[in-house]
Amino acid sequence: MNKRLFSFVAGECGEWSIRSIQTIVGESLPTSKRLTIENGDFSGKCDWALRGVTSNERYVTKAEKTALVSKQEGLGRKASNYAALIPIRKTDAWWSLTQEERRDIFEEQSRHTDIGQKFLPNIARKLHHCRDLASVEPFDFITWFEYSSEDETMFDELVQSLREGIEWQYVEREIDIRLVKE
Amino acid sequence: MNKRLFSFVAGECGEWSIRSIQTIVGESLPTSKRLTIENGDFSGKCDWALRGVTSNERYVTKAEKTALVSKQEGLGRKASNYAALIPIRKTDAWWSLTQEERRDIFEEQSRHTDIGQKFLPNIARKLHHCRDLASVEPFDFITWFEYSSEDETMFDELVQSLREGIEWQYVEREIDIRLVKE
Repeated sequence: MNKRLFSFVAGECGEWSIRSIQTIVGESLPTSKRLTIENGDFSGKCDWALRGVTSNERYVTKAEKTALVSKQEGLGRKASNYAALIPIRKTDAWWSLTQEERRDIFEEQSRHTDIGQKFLPNIARKLHHCRDLASVEPFDFITWFEYSSEDETMFDELVQSLREGIEWQYVEREIDIRLVKE
Repeated sequence: MNKRLFSFVAGECGEWSIRSIQTIVGESLPTSKRLTIENGDFSGKCDWALRGVTSNERYVTKAEKTALVSKQEGLGRKASNYAALIPIRKTDAWWSLTQEERRDIFEEQSRHTDIGQKFLPNIARKLHHCRDLASVEPFDFITWFEYSSEDETMFDELVQSLREGIEWQYVEREIDIRLVKE
């Protein structure tokens, strides 16, 4: 199994309790109580399971990466009692663009990295890719965020800023799942 | 199953007869007689099977893409009685680079697309990605080439030019498999 593969499994068990599941655009996901993150594949009983692999950088420049690395903190911080799981699927039109066209929309027009870095180190994140798995997956990306409950307003501001950008015109399915560690 | 998934299956059957398997760098692959390309996964008996998904463009600019599209021809041409299957794995150092650093090595320093387009339309190609599958795969990319036996020297020139570039310093495993349609 690819060591970079992670499964986000919703059901009766898991250290994360699901506070809300909000459908932003497209088809919804069934409700569920708890969530666990497994390294590798998952084939047991659950309400739903989403999986993706962490991978190489796709858009950030060297300068942006250096800035991010100097400010960001990892997952698993004690103070991070809140989390968000946001799976997204982009349109065929997005995937038909060249790399430079996607980069232009992602950063020059929509300031994706620039917006994200403003909320560091409070909001930690990890991106997983699903589109190039051998199976058909319901989303292209799964992003996992961790932060303190005190920063929930800040997190709302972050996702709102991203959703207002041109990049989000290419998002055809998005679910915003909020969790608390219990 | 992802419709973009393809399996390259070596064994007793298949419309392509394997002429040679040359290890360019790294561990070799077992010898085999014939090869078939299946859309989707493969779990039957074989000498070896490699799989990968076609995906979105990673490096070409809009201008480069337009130039390629105007010159290239598809797979399956009657005159294409020869083929090559070249699986490649790149080093961790390559995957740690940012997109712009990889693009710089790929094109500005190594002229990968520029070299490839010189051999169009004679040599048709299709790229498959393996690195972000859920399973551990032996290669990062699988490229399938088709051309006429009359153009074998031209194909040798193409791969030789690419192997001389800086980009190939990041290639840690490469096998060059030549085939004929029978």
